[in-house]
Amino acid sequence: MSENTTERQAGGGRRARGGGAARRAERTAPRIEAARYITRNIPDFEVLTPEAIEIIELNAETVLEEIGVSFVDNPAALKRWRDAGADVSGDRVRIPRGLARQLCATAPSRYTQHARNPERNVEIGRRNLVLAPVYGPPFVRDLHGGRRYATMADFEKFVKLGYMSKWLHHSGGTVCEPTDVAVNKRHLGMLYAHMRWSDKPFMGSVTERSRAVDSIRMCEILFGADFVGANPVMTSLVNINSPLTFDNIMMDALEVYAEAGQGCIISPFIVGGAMAPVSVAGTLTQVLAEVLAGVAYSQLIRPGAPAIFGAFVTSIDMNSGAPTFGTPEASKILWGAGQLARRMGLPFRSGGALCGSKLPDAQAAYETANTLNAMLLGGVNFCLHAAGWLEGGLVSSFEKFVLDADQLGVLHSLAEGVDADADAQAMDAIREVGPAGHYLGCAHTQAHFKDAIWRSQVLDYKPFETWHDDGGLDSHQLAHARVQRLLRDYTAPAIDPGIDEALQAYVAERKASEPDAYA
Amino acid sequence: MSENTTERQAGGGRRARGGGAARRAERTAPRIEAARYITRNIPDFEVLTPEAIEIIELNAETVLEEIGVSFVDNPAALKRWRDAGADVSGDRVRIPRGLARQLCATAPSRYTQHARNPERNVEIGRRNLVLAPVYGPPFVRDLHGGRRYATMADFEKFVKLGYMSKWLHHSGGTVCEPTDVAVNKRHLGMLYAHMRWSDKPFMGSVTERSRAVDSIRMCEILFGADFVGANPVMTSLVNINSPLTFDNIMMDALEVYAEAGQGCIISPFIVGGAMAPVSVAGTLTQVLAEVLAGVAYSQLIRPGAPAIFGAFVTSIDMNSGAPTFGTPEASKILWGAGQLARRMGLPFRSGGALCGSKLPDAQAAYETANTLNAMLLGGVNFCLHAAGWLEGGLVSSFEKFVLDADQLGVLHSLAEGVDADADAQAMDAIREVGPAGHYLGCAHTQAHFKDAIWRSQVLDYKPFETWHDDGGLDSHQLAHARVQRLLRDYTAPAIDPGIDEALQAYVAERKASEPDAYA
Repeated sequence: MSENTTERQAGGGRRARGGGAARRAERTAPRIEAARYITRNIPDFEVLTPEAIEIIELNAETVLEEIGVSFVDNPAALKRWRDAGADVSGDRVRIPRGLARQLCATAPSRYTQHARNPERNVEIGRRNLVLAPVYGPPFVRDLHGGRRYATMADFEKFVKLGYMSKWLHHSGGTVCEPTDVAVNKRHLGMLYAHMRWSDKPFMGSVTERSRAVDSIRMCEILFGADFVGANPVMTSLVNINSPLTFDNIMMDALEVYAEAGQGCIISPFIVGGAMAPVSVAGTLTQVLAEVLAGVAYSQLIRPGAPAIFGAFVTSIDMNSGAPTFGTPEASKILWGAGQLARRMGLPFRSGGALCGSKLPDAQAAYETANTLNAMLLGGVNFCLHAAGWLEGGLVSSFEKFVLDADQLGVLHSLAEGVDADADAQAMDAIREVGPAGHYLGCAHTQAHFKDAIWRSQVLDYKPFETWHDDGGLDSHQLAHARVQRLLRDYTAPAIDPGIDEALQAYVAERKASEPDAYA
Repeated sequence: MSENTTERQAGGGRRARGGGAARRAERTAPRIEAARYITRNIPDFEVLTPEAIEIIELNAETVLEEIGVSFVDNPAALKRWRDAGADVSGDRVRIPRGLARQLCATAPSRYTQHARNPERNVEIGRRNLVLAPVYGPPFVRDLHGGRRYATMADFEKFVKLGYMSKWLHHSGGTVCEPTDVAVNKRHLGMLYAHMRWSDKPFMGSVTERSRAVDSIRMCEILFGADFVGANPVMTSLVNINSPLTFDNIMMDALEVYAEAGQGCIISPFIVGGAMAPVSVAGTLTQVLAEVLAGVAYSQLIRPGAPAIFGAFVTSIDMNSGAPTFGTPEASKILWGAGQLARRMGLPFRSGGALCGSKLPDAQAAYETANTLNAMLLGGVNFCLHAAGWLEGGLVSSFEKFVLDADQLGVLHSLAEGVDADADAQAMDAIREVGPAGHYLGCAHTQAHFKDAIWRSQVLDYKPFETWHDDGGLDSHQLAHARVQRLLRDYTAPAIDPGIDEALQAYVAERKASEPDAYA
């Protein structure tokens, strides 16, 4: 794994703008180990035959042409579509066969999202995989505190855990909803937390046009306006209201970000059987139609704006109506969507540490591991929810966050593939040991034992008796201890004090400019 | 999943030898749902490049030619090898380049292992996957009883749980070690339990030559001697004492079974870094050399004897020396070994519900799911340890048995691939629902909701409030309840009373013929 890992001085790098004080702070900050984003040296797993792909692509065009998509409360969008050659009637947009795919052609196949620490920049697309934490839960849970509404204090803890996690490349967005802050102001605190308590790349706000604008303004303070004008510094999540509906709030955010050349994930949000057909091929048809329309629209805003082919798709329990995770249907849809995304030449977003369990127990881990394994092999380029997701996304779990983040290390090593150079062939070792010997002490093992095999930082590897004498702790308890240790050891990355002051001033001014709103 | 599932009258089928009484018993027995073995409709995941395969195959031949393998305390084996053209010196057998592979050519690429209920027959090889339970643990664990030495009563419970498990195709072998029975007699009780309390195929004893002979004798009673002479009715586990050593006890068993035309898994048992080099390519080289020698030897005993390319390979924690499971290195070795096995045209055994955790917690499930997913995609044909394995194989867990067995349903559905016929395309449903509708009530969903999506039989899908009011149970507790329910509902498959009597008489006679031995 060593080749995928970099170590660095926290806060070091390109934009030490603050002169001597900032540079001194950087030199004394503790070293945080962080892995480079994954670049796959293994093939993608493909479940669709060429014939199935052809059928789904044909059907998706038929959906766009005959059924169309709705752009709700958005006259400007309807005008853009009409001008582009679509058939618009009411808020329904019917797109002639081939037009959407043709518009999508200007979207880049890859882009670099910049972080304030340039060593944390991520390239999204190609054979790469960028891992970002859970997004959206209104609740948090931990071992002793149980399940409760999330607060800004919880939010900051998750940002810090993400910063400390070697295998997470991205700080994410709404790692939980800080419900103790007014709805119209919480985006300011969330953005500040990502900018101040981490130095990894992050996501912008999408819940209102002005909040997307705030996200860009704050990035201009952090990175400089010229830099933001010329480079993606955010990748934000624009959900499609499946089936086939683009609501105006999400489109407001997409319009702001695309116009500014910032990256967006354009993502059907589907519980299969409820928001899409119950069959895999039917769901893929709808996913493709929705992404074609959404990415095409981003290119109508600004050709070349970075757009990611998203597919958040889970299955449904037909007995209870509950969304279910880690199911075979979800994996097959993920694999199929990956094939469709690669055919479009777009970066692909799917997967995550998804589960329906209420607790970070065996159910949570089976469902999560099923999804993470499918995600790695399915060629995903951007994986949201890669750590901390619990209870169908209603809960951000502290313990599951560190358990999942640890498992992401498995993916890094899997992605490296198999080295078959002379050293890896180990013929000298086999000759040295011969029949009935053992390899623990041989030269080859001694030279490689530190990095040859992935090692968990949280799971239990003790002999039974030691484990038992140490209290017989389960994974939940071991993870709880790790959360406490990480938060205790956390040290903030250095930041230019002038920038920090300007960010705080912007947040204060914007908060003072309007009354609190809670809906 | 419907196409992979068969239902049947327990005990029905070919060999209702016992006349009216047996047939009446069969007609009144409850219906047990059991899935057909998996036939993959998805590709294999291949991690080795053609160049890497070529290197590993070349190096394995070099190992056999220059280093050789040891056949310990086995003059007859040394003579067979010498006659076949090997260079034998002491107990070391050096095999000229190409000879082992050439001898392996007579091993079949597939074979049918027969069960006493012919609907439970399994075809081992090709695109098929047969799932069998955990093998070997001296301890058992359950939620309330904790960890304790296994007994014959525990053994029988695991056989019954395997019989009740829809997704297990095979009853396995030593589902736990019945430590309350003398070592020289426990195989008799284990074989009887598989034959009487299940009707799925099973494994023979390998711990002593006479016990392998007993296994065949008991099968002759169950199936008829002519049938056993002409058909594989057992698949037994012959471990190689890695590195490169074939001990005489295991070879005794292999010789008995191969001579009788019965199937054997010939399997390196490797903790990577201890019994093989610490690198993936080095381990694969040794695995291939060992399997080449072992399968070749089986063909020296009887050309055409069914032999499976086995690879039980796990990794090591270099800090503690403990074996570790669900690691990326183990998955890569599994995938690579699968490629090597397919190049030899042999059925492939690897994987399982492997984990190192002491409890059926999140660690156990992450490690297990990592392994099961790699196993399915790696083209495994026979998966031992597919349910119940805990604590590195020291413990058979009742709760983990039913949790793992449930997850095997995921593999069945994944293996089906994606249907893209007109009905699966669901274009009528997409037209019917249109933008902003929902699919729950549409005709396509109503027609398919029962079988379109895999559903767990043990995990929790309730809304939070219901789950909480029902006691807030975790997976361990839910699984415990399922174990109790299954054992309560168990009904033995019918058996011809005359055969049962003859089996019991054989066991009694053999037990009386020698004193108990406990070592």
